[in-house]
Amino acid sequence: MTLHDDGHGNRPVGVAASPAGGLSLPGPGPGGVSFHEMWRELLPIGRSSASGGYRRYAWTGADGECRDWFRAQAEARGLAYEVDRNGNQWAWLGDPAQGDAVVTGSHLDSVPDGGAFDGPLGVVSSFAALDELRGRDARFAKPLGIVNFGDEEGARFGLACVGSRLAAGQLTVDQAHRLTDGDGITLPQAMAAAGYDPDAIGPDPERLARIGAFVELHVEQGRALDLSGDRVGIASAIWPHGRWRFDFRGEANHAGTTRLADRRDPMLSYAETVLAARREARLADAVATFGKIAVEPNGVNAIPSLVRGWLDSRAADQQTLDTVVTGIQQAAREYADAHGVDLDVVRESFTPVVEFDHALRDELARILGKDTDLKVPVLGTGAGHDAGILSGTVPTAMLFVRNPTGVSHSPAEFAAEDDCVAGVSALADVLEGLACA
Amino acid sequence: MTLHDDGHGNRPVGVAASPAGGLSLPGPGPGGVSFHEMWRELLPIGRSSASGGYRRYAWTGADGECRDWFRAQAEARGLAYEVDRNGNQWAWLGDPAQGDAVVTGSHLDSVPDGGAFDGPLGVVSSFAALDELRGRDARFAKPLGIVNFGDEEGARFGLACVGSRLAAGQLTVDQAHRLTDGDGITLPQAMAAAGYDPDAIGPDPERLARIGAFVELHVEQGRALDLSGDRVGIASAIWPHGRWRFDFRGEANHAGTTRLADRRDPMLSYAETVLAARREARLADAVATFGKIAVEPNGVNAIPSLVRGWLDSRAADQQTLDTVVTGIQQAAREYADAHGVDLDVVRESFTPVVEFDHALRDELARILGKDTDLKVPVLGTGAGHDAGILSGTVPTAMLFVRNPTGVSHSPAEFAAEDDCVAGVSALADVLEGLACA
Repeated sequence: MTLHDDGHGNRPVGVAASPAGGLSLPGPGPGGVSFHEMWRELLPIGRSSASGGYRRYAWTGADGECRDWFRAQAEARGLAYEVDRNGNQWAWLGDPAQGDAVVTGSHLDSVPDGGAFDGPLGVVSSFAALDELRGRDARFAKPLGIVNFGDEEGARFGLACVGSRLAAGQLTVDQAHRLTDGDGITLPQAMAAAGYDPDAIGPDPERLARIGAFVELHVEQGRALDLSGDRVGIASAIWPHGRWRFDFRGEANHAGTTRLADRRDPMLSYAETVLAARREARLADAVATFGKIAVEPNGVNAIPSLVRGWLDSRAADQQTLDTVVTGIQQAAREYADAHGVDLDVVRESFTPVVEFDHALRDELARILGKDTDLKVPVLGTGAGHDAGILSGTVPTAMLFVRNPTGVSHSPAEFAAEDDCVAGVSALADVLEGLACA
Repeated sequence: MTLHDDGHGNRPVGVAASPAGGLSLPGPGPGGVSFHEMWRELLPIGRSSASGGYRRYAWTGADGECRDWFRAQAEARGLAYEVDRNGNQWAWLGDPAQGDAVVTGSHLDSVPDGGAFDGPLGVVSSFAALDELRGRDARFAKPLGIVNFGDEEGARFGLACVGSRLAAGQLTVDQAHRLTDGDGITLPQAMAAAGYDPDAIGPDPERLARIGAFVELHVEQGRALDLSGDRVGIASAIWPHGRWRFDFRGEANHAGTTRLADRRDPMLSYAETVLAARREARLADAVATFGKIAVEPNGVNAIPSLVRGWLDSRAADQQTLDTVVTGIQQAAREYADAHGVDLDVVRESFTPVVEFDHALRDELARILGKDTDLKVPVLGTGAGHDAGILSGTVPTAMLFVRNPTGVSHSPAEFAAEDDCVAGVSALADVLEGLACA
């Protein structure tokens, strides 16, 4: 088995054939690292002692430590390790050039002060499922890949799923080169600083064409499984969702001396719009959130000149989402007019509904249905994932693991150990069913 | 006339007696610089080309340039220049040790993206009034001082009027040493970096005891003079005012996947409280403003864990202010409870009503009443000033110059040239009336 690398090398790397001609699992070696051990190794990386949450932003030191960990896991299992042109990491059992590969994985980066499970649970479960299959002495008929997609959360550059978007051609190289973080550092500068070649990035259709099925395991980010009393679920679809920026522009003025009647205070129309968003979402059984704000000049004794608020909204279908966002915009405009405030609304991103591959979904349900102890409901989700990006190109499915509180994107994010183990077992079943002879 | 200095020297500096025994104005020399020329020199210092507003924060480079300008003005007029232990700058005609000095002046620092007039108009008008009195060949019976108080706006360290508070003993050395800016730099570090000795700061009762009257000229920060059609006004009182920090703590969560019913979103109670503040202020004929906010984690797809909003509120009297703030706090608590959000309210600062010295106020009205072309109304203000801080120790008065839009703390802050000239003339009359034989 030959492993090329150039340190961080995002050059495609040749993958050797498996030792025994057919595809089989590698011997124990330094592998056999359990789910728990892997989990313990990852836990301290990029964790803020102040918040207890994770700050694993793309191409930072914490991200690099996670990536080193991924590579070490691959090598410990004798898997062929490679980094693709977009900085996504891959670990292969068997030769992906054979085609019809079965791939699993997720991401290791985090939102600001995110939890331990969103992303890492899928990557750790992928290696652990491979270990479990090794214990079952499974024999693979198809190449098996484990992937860590780069920059899934978009915490640093404001756009989610950059690694998978680039690979799938859903983000152009020009667009990616213009991405800039809060300190004015561009994506190419950040990649170069981390030792990657930003001029290599771009669509990767040949790589994706070799994948016959992609299955991403993820902690659920709502309470559907908790409410139904199930450990594991299968995704049906990702709700359409988008982000809109509302710029309320008024007039900066002295908070102590300006008569209320003389004010053009954009904070008031912002506040009214926050409440309108909640109202519209409730009426439509959707979600709408103002979670990010920027105020100028942001002084205690200054009426703001600008209040910029970002709306995140999602609904089960496109028409419902349109109704919600149109309602919020109309309300915002009325409030702004009433306060003499100017309003601009810009749609910063939009992702249409993603229906996961029906045949693959049914196949997962069939495989998992063999275990009569496990009831596996099919459920939709409001969260975006690399699986959603890939679903336009590759047959894609997702498994969710129960989240007893539904809390996500927070240090309090949690999944019970028994449920994580059930997730590993379900993923092993799925990989065995899809990839083994 | 001997001028000591140690570069930036905030050591008290001896002031020599005037050249001719009696007190008289210095000859023209490089003085005679007009109001317009001084104004033009100050205009570019610390101005943001992006916003057009000023960023003259205490102990920064822009602040230092303003201070160099002040010193140059003093020296050009042959005034004795000194910096007191708290970094306030003084320019003296005559020996302040004589006592019963008449002092005028204001400040040169700014709020974030502030206007050109708030502060500098008072300092420039002070030098210009001296120039005008020289033209009148006025002879002074009392020492005359011009002062630039340091860090009036509190833009950097969050507390207004640091220079005058320290001098008046209204801020302890310990409290001042603990002040920290947004980058974690302490006030002592900032002072030391600017070349001042932070260990020298403290109360300055002897210096203040030498002052018989302090008159601060300031651009009006409301529209009272515009509405009454007058160029210049006399302050009656500064409204009581305070700052309160409202910490709404909820639960960070994923904005796409968390059901509305499962949320504890602090942005909602914040928004409701912003609107409650406006309502309570309107009912009481007071002002209440939420102009500064800090959100955690402040991510587009994250329900916030914390929304911290700062309330600035002021009213004509204490009881009204209490009613307004109590009403806002009660409403905020109800909203927080309804959303499962925790609320802490901390009063960060409070300044009781300041009634300016009645005898001095009446004296100003008498002096300015001699000019039958000038009607000079007496008016209250919601803004804090160094004059308000000193008023507990020194007989203090204020003159306001008309602000045609009422806009302040904004790049759009403005006063007409004719009104500024009327202000200089009124200040010259007042200084002559108070200080000349």
